[in-house]
Amino acid sequence: MKILVLHGPNLNLLGTREPAVYGKVTLEEINAALLKLGEELGCSVSTLQSNSEGELVDAIQAASGKFDGILINPAAYTHSSIAISDALSAVSLPVVEVHLSNIHGREEFRSKSFVARIAVGQISGFGIDSYLLGLRALCSYLKK
Amino acid sequence: MKILVLHGPNLNLLGTREPAVYGKVTLEEINAALLKLGEELGCSVSTLQSNSEGELVDAIQAASGKFDGILINPAAYTHSSIAISDALSAVSLPVVEVHLSNIHGREEFRSKSFVARIAVGQISGFGIDSYLLGLRALCSYLKK
Amino acid sequence: MKILVLHGPNLNLLGTREPAVYGKVTLEEINAALLKLGEELGCSVSTLQSNSEGELVDAIQAASGKFDGILINPAAYTHSSIAISDALSAVSLPVVEVHLSNIHGREEFRSKSFVARIAVGQISGFGIDSYLLGLRALCSYLKK
Amino acid sequence: MKILVLHGPNLNLLGTREPAVYGKVTLEEINAALLKLGEELGCSVSTLQSNSEGELVDAIQAASGKFDGILINPAAYTHSSIAISDALSAVSLPVVEVHLSNIHGREEFRSKSFVARIAVGQISGFGIDSYLLGLRALCSYLKK
Amino acid sequence: MKILVLHGPNLNLLGTREPAVYGKVTLEEINAALLKLGEELGCSVSTLQSNSEGELVDAIQAASGKFDGILINPAAYTHSSIAISDALSAVSLPVVEVHLSNIHGREEFRSKSFVARIAVGQISGFGIDSYLLGLRALCSYLKK
Amino acid sequence: MKILVLHGPNLNLLGTREPAVYGKVTLEEINAALLKLGEELGCSVSTLQSNSEGELVDAIQAASGKFDGILINPAAYTHSSIAISDALSAVSLPVVEVHLSNIHGREEFRSKSFVARIAVGQISGFGIDSYLLGLRALCSYLKK
Amino acid sequence: MKILVLHGPNLNLLGTREPAVYGKVTLEEINAALLKLGEELGCSVSTLQSNSEGELVDAIQAASGKFDGILINPAAYTHSSIAISDALSAVSLPVVEVHLSNIHGREEFRSKSFVARIAVGQISGFGIDSYLLGLRALCSYLKK
Amino acid sequence: MKILVLHGPNLNLLGTREPAVYGKVTLEEINAALLKLGEELGCSVSTLQSNSEGELVDAIQAASGKFDGILINPAAYTHSSIAISDALSAVSLPVVEVHLSNIHGREEFRSKSFVARIAVGQISGFGIDSYLLGLRALCSYLKK
Amino acid sequence: MKILVLHGPNLNLLGTREPAVYGKVTLEEINAALLKLGEELGCSVSTLQSNSEGELVDAIQAASGKFDGILINPAAYTHSSIAISDALSAVSLPVVEVHLSNIHGREEFRSKSFVARIAVGQISGFGIDSYLLGLRALCSYLKK
Amino acid sequence: MKILVLHGPNLNLLGTREPAVYGKVTLEEINAALLKLGEELGCSVSTLQSNSEGELVDAIQAASGKFDGILINPAAYTHSSIAISDALSAVSLPVVEVHLSNIHGREEFRSKSFVARIAVGQISGFGIDSYLLGLRALCSYLKK
Amino acid sequence: MKILVLHGPNLNLLGTREPAVYGKVTLEEINAALLKLGEELGCSVSTLQSNSEGELVDAIQAASGKFDGILINPAAYTHSSIAISDALSAVSLPVVEVHLSNIHGREEFRSKSFVARIAVGQISGFGIDSYLLGLRALCSYLKK
Amino acid sequence: MKILVLHGPNLNLLGTREPAVYGKVTLEEINAALLKLGEELGCSVSTLQSNSEGELVDAIQAASGKFDGILINPAAYTHSSIAISDALSAVSLPVVEVHLSNIHGREEFRSKSFVARIAVGQISGFGIDSYLLGLRALCSYLKK
Repeated sequence: MKILVLHGPNLNLLGTREPAVYGKVTLEEINAALLKLGEELGCSVSTLQSNSEGELVDAIQAASGKFDGILINPAAYTHSSIAISDALSAVSLPVVEVHLSNIHGREEFRSKSFVARIAVGQISGFGIDSYLLGLRALCSYLKK
Repeated sequence: MKILVLHGPNLNLLGTREPAVYGKVTLEEINAALLKLGEELGCSVSTLQSNSEGELVDAIQAASGKFDGILINPAAYTHSSIAISDALSAVSLPVVEVHLSNIHGREEFRSKSFVARIAVGQISGFGIDSYLLGLRALCSYLKK
Repeated sequence: MKILVLHGPNLNLLGTREPAVYGKVTLEEINAALLKLGEELGCSVSTLQSNSEGELVDAIQAASGKFDGILINPAAYTHSSIAISDALSAVSLPVVEVHLSNIHGREEFRSKSFVARIAVGQISGFGIDSYLLGLRALCSYLKK
Repeated sequence: MKILVLHGPNLNLLGTREPAVYGKVTLEEINAALLKLGEELGCSVSTLQSNSEGELVDAIQAASGKFDGILINPAAYTHSSIAISDALSAVSLPVVEVHLSNIHGREEFRSKSFVARIAVGQISGFGIDSYLLGLRALCSYLKK
Repeated sequence: MKILVLHGPNLNLLGTREPAVYGKVTLEEINAALLKLGEELGCSVSTLQSNSEGELVDAIQAASGKFDGILINPAAYTHSSIAISDALSAVSLPVVEVHLSNIHGREEFRSKSFVARIAVGQISGFGIDSYLLGLRALCSYLKK
Repeated sequence: MKILVLHGPNLNLLGTREPAVYGKVTLEEINAALLKLGEELGCSVSTLQSNSEGELVDAIQAASGKFDGILINPAAYTHSSIAISDALSAVSLPVVEVHLSNIHGREEFRSKSFVARIAVGQISGFGIDSYLLGLRALCSYLKK
Repeated sequence: MKILVLHGPNLNLLGTREPAVYGKVTLEEINAALLKLGEELGCSVSTLQSNSEGELVDAIQAASGKFDGILINPAAYTHSSIAISDALSAVSLPVVEVHLSNIHGREEFRSKSFVARIAVGQISGFGIDSYLLGLRALCSYLKK
Repeated sequence: MKILVLHGPNLNLLGTREPAVYGKVTLEEINAALLKLGEELGCSVSTLQSNSEGELVDAIQAASGKFDGILINPAAYTHSSIAISDALSAVSLPVVEVHLSNIHGREEFRSKSFVARIAVGQISGFGIDSYLLGLRALCSYLKK
Repeated sequence: MKILVLHGPNLNLLGTREPAVYGKVTLEEINAALLKLGEELGCSVSTLQSNSEGELVDAIQAASGKFDGILINPAAYTHSSIAISDALSAVSLPVVEVHLSNIHGREEFRSKSFVARIAVGQISGFGIDSYLLGLRALCSYLKK
Repeated sequence: MKILVLHGPNLNLLGTREPAVYGKVTLEEINAALLKLGEELGCSVSTLQSNSEGELVDAIQAASGKFDGILINPAAYTHSSIAISDALSAVSLPVVEVHLSNIHGREEFRSKSFVARIAVGQISGFGIDSYLLGLRALCSYLKK
Repeated sequence: MKILVLHGPNLNLLGTREPAVYGKVTLEEINAALLKLGEELGCSVSTLQSNSEGELVDAIQAASGKFDGILINPAAYTHSSIAISDALSAVSLPVVEVHLSNIHGREEFRSKSFVARIAVGQISGFGIDSYLLGLRALCSYLKK
Repeated sequence: MKILVLHGPNLNLLGTREPAVYGKVTLEEINAALLKLGEELGCSVSTLQSNSEGELVDAIQAASGKFDGILINPAAYTHSSIAISDALSAVSLPVVEVHLSNIHGREEFRSKSFVARIAVGQISGFGIDSYLLGLRALCSYLKK
């Protein structure tokens, strides 16, 4: 069971800057925690971060045939990218959407998600735990 | 560490009716699974289901001083009850909101949540796993 | 053939107060007329009124297996209760929605119905006749 | 007691085409059933179908002085014709509005009715029974 | 100078019915008053009333080359007919729009006019005087 | 019969500037034409222009008992001033609203009028003729 | 002169929790202050708090014939309960609506009140004084 | 293979009036070009223009059993006629919608089409070529 | 303790005109009642009425340093004046907003208040009592 | 005559995946068909696909001076990219917009196109034929 | 080159009150800085502040023929005054709009400007520098 | 003091194409003018243009620690890119937003800016001067 984890724009900044807002956890630590949990759950985890909508679409397309599911934090593209949503829909892999902050308790424009339309489910608000819970959810879904 | 799990209206029907839509898992099985996971995670779990908005408000108020956190699936009241949201806000306990189905991929009116405004986070779309992931999230949050 | 008739909030006041607005017919007279017409149509009629959303949800849930159809005037809850709509949807019984006044000719907020989404049909504007026509419609539907 | 029954655009196609959607009942059968029920209820029934908004307005105007009430299924013109609504308002006859399907459970644009503003009441969702119930409602209204 | 006066749907009912609402003036009297004023102002007036959107479009098209201007009370079609608006725009004759009642002080949906987009001006609220003032306005416009 | 004519903000600029937009007629010429027509119609005309919303409210209040009707071009205040609308409503004099340009064919925000809610009628689009027709309409209304 | 004071959901929590937000005054102190002021004003005051919409509707209905007026703080139900509004309308007693906080200066959804449609007046923003002023207003109204 | 081509309101004016806006091509020339292309593509073409919504509905209904597909330029009725849309839906023939001008680059209200909901596809903006491309598209679709 | 009472546009007309709508109480009587109550409450009251938005802004600015609080009925400017709201905000004095009629039960546009955003509280619907209650509320607020 | 054909995000997946939704035709086959038709029509065709908004903007800019027209299927960027629309506008080449599916019969958000504002015309709903018809339309346009 | 600088309502309070919000710079200092910069740039600067919409309209009208351009901070009138916008449009002088705070990052209602429609440009967010940059922009514009 | 100047999509086309719309100034000339003014103001200026949203995000992230402030013309991405706005927010550098044209006087969709939410201020409408004034504003801001 192979999982692709995609991180959207600005997530590479995690931990190193603005710890008050984004927490002190770095993206490397999140990725390490995901790999470790993946081992526990018996699934291999690959990770990718990009600030470019096009690159994320490319990565999603390339996942077809190579991965069994996608865990994605689309960050700012959550609210505007139909291209990412269409790519996820086209590759027909189960998708779990995660967010560090609770997007339903912030600015109005952050509560709409184009990805949620085609995702199995969505987890938001738990910081790094959003990713770990999302990985559990995706593995559990794939085993059924 | 003591957790109150609240189930909103119509969730008592789970599993016994309309399995095609709601799945075959009963509310008793969900509660049992939560208790079992609670033991693993070292927290005691109490559960309550009600079809009445007022009873849910009562239960939330009564939780103050007796519980450390609330895991709630407000079901239909998610989208209309300011009273439940205000009660959760008043007791000042950490709240995790869960939904069996992906409310962001259904009818427009189901994507708005009054509870999300005051919740730590929200998990939706993973069936019984939404509850189990929510319990993990809440325990993890309380430990920090 | 057994029919459950549900009356929503404030309908217990019918006839005894504000006859200019609500007419002079009492809820008892409506219930008597429904029982009498039920006999004619060969179906037994049970009636219940409640001002509480939760009690109405309870009654709908309890109807499963005991009744063949539900005739409901959700009154004020028509426009706001997703819980009643979800309960009606969950028990999978045919539902006919009735209103004493023509809700489509009154205030804007009264023309939206959450119940209509899952009802066989809706009858509004004919006073006590809305109920009697609704009972005919439901019996006729059940016979098909 | 004389009743004019008006059928709006495309209702002449009933039964002969798309029976899966529109049912197998033809407009002739509906008209026959209305005449038969009219005899039972002691009122004479005349029927007219037109695809033209203007012809329907003409027919409504001509009903003044010749009929005691109008039973109308405005079909597609329900949602757009202020002219039909104004004509019904001008002739000052009691109007009952009927629809074969439940217009409140279909596309958003089908739930708005310009006719409902001036009708005694509205019945929708019961197929041919919508007409028969509507005739009962109108006769009952006229007798009061 | 030749003027075509067009009356929209239901205006043929003027004066004979609902005098409390529509006033006691008949359409014949309006037409007579327009002809008389036309003589004073030195312009010949032709009038036409129709309940049919298509016939009004036909009449507008036929006016090209035969008339110098159009005075129109589109009645209910004011708010919904793009076809009449397009026809008026296509024949390139000066158009004055009149209304018996003040459409800007009635229901919200009556304040929008598709005709106003292409009219020289609009007069509403003065009963028969709306027509007479409109004829003056149109003649005055044509003389410039 | 005494008529107060009120001109709203910027109308003092008429004719002297931007003749391409506003026409070449000055406010003085409009006032002169109104006085002349007033004499013909047997009514005395007083005129006032102000750029200040408060002064226009003062003038409307002062008209009570001194004038029989008000002819007003509220200009820019048409779309925003509830105070002018309330003042006109309070003095209970018949009001006719006029506009030089066709406000229903310009920017969206210019088609809404707070004055129209309480006016007898509205005339827009005919340049100076809007005023003259408005005076005719008001005199005619007062004579009835 | 007998006044019923109704407190909506979560108001039982006043003073004992979150004093920073809700103030230190308890509901008991508010009730005591109302009784004391009632004595001064010569009217007897009864109070009731409930978290249940249905119980509040029941209490309003039961007030008919026993009380001369209702002072209500509908709290969260202010913004969603048509049932409470309909009940208040049905019993035909004068209603004064009060709020501890200024609901017009908070979240958008808190500024809409279904109760205000049928209330004599509304007082919001003065903490316990909102109740005391409301009692004065209601007594004064009843004396006229 | 037989194709019905329907032209909506005001299209009879093409070419003879307002050539700057509508182009110099007449409806006769469009029809001739369609017949010629029809011959090339091996399908017979019949054409009809009407300014009346009802006549267009009649023509669509009559097409059932006589034609294999419909090519329609609904013109002004595109944006308002549910009756035409319902008729096209009822006869179950493939429909191709064409427009001379690019309706998506004009006034806001022209970009909404009730016909597009049930059409195979839509072509707009290419003048007479919109029709010719539409005929190719419809023939190609029918051959599959 | 010194209070400035500000009356907005058209309130100078109170009592002398339209007593059916505005009541028979004059502004002088309101002012006298306020002075009398002020004496009872131990605070001096100054009053000012203006129809001009700018004058009201001037008066608010001038209140700084001279008064301890402002009691304002902004009347028609309630709904449109950001300038008055900004002035009240700038002088940093406690503000109580009052309205004679219940603005939340009238036209939609009257329920929005720019002043409420910065006021301590709002009282509406009690006629002259709105002012007297407002003065009590303001004095009580200042004493805390 | 040289034409640039641009394919937006996810169109590289055509035919190889989800044939039920996207059809069995591959992008290579579409390109081959376009080249073949281009030869027939006497114009050379170059094609480019990209998942990146920025690359599409680059390609559009580079087309200036090298191509005579652009045929574009902007796919998901149709509804969100002002940058592509601005680029097309800047290079001042004729643009034809095509879509495989009928975007006006799908989700609401797919019916808005930023490209249509500056395109000659739009063709949607005919699968590969949308491209071929679009090429014909563009060539025909360029020849005029 | 002569420039008129207009300051809208409440700007006379700058610096003397609420320095935390409005900064410590007074209007006198802003005016002095503008005169000084005007000298550097070779243009004479006149300044005026008013709390009255009507006075600002008067001042704008009077600027015609005496000044070469207008620098305006309309403050609260930015968002509501069509009269000021119309006056600026009528005098046909170049207008530069400035704001001390960034109006696009504050309350929703502050981001709309009626003045921007007719201004050369807008500068907001830089405190006193907004004025100085605005003067530079206006002088630079006038020199071209 | 080091400033990064970012130019969004299509700005590389400046001056060489469509001079009537975009002016004759090239991006090179703008950059040169910025460097020259930077020298005067004592700050070093680096510039970058990109058509890619992702590249702009990369550049903003890379600016952290290397630059003291960012001057950005986000062009088309102004209205849609939450990613750029989030990146600017994350690096915590002062941002000044500039636009060549007055975006508040163009199409509705161009007046909304996601960047303005986190910018110090915004300057629009002055062509190349928008950049130069923006550089002055940023330097002045940094010096404080």
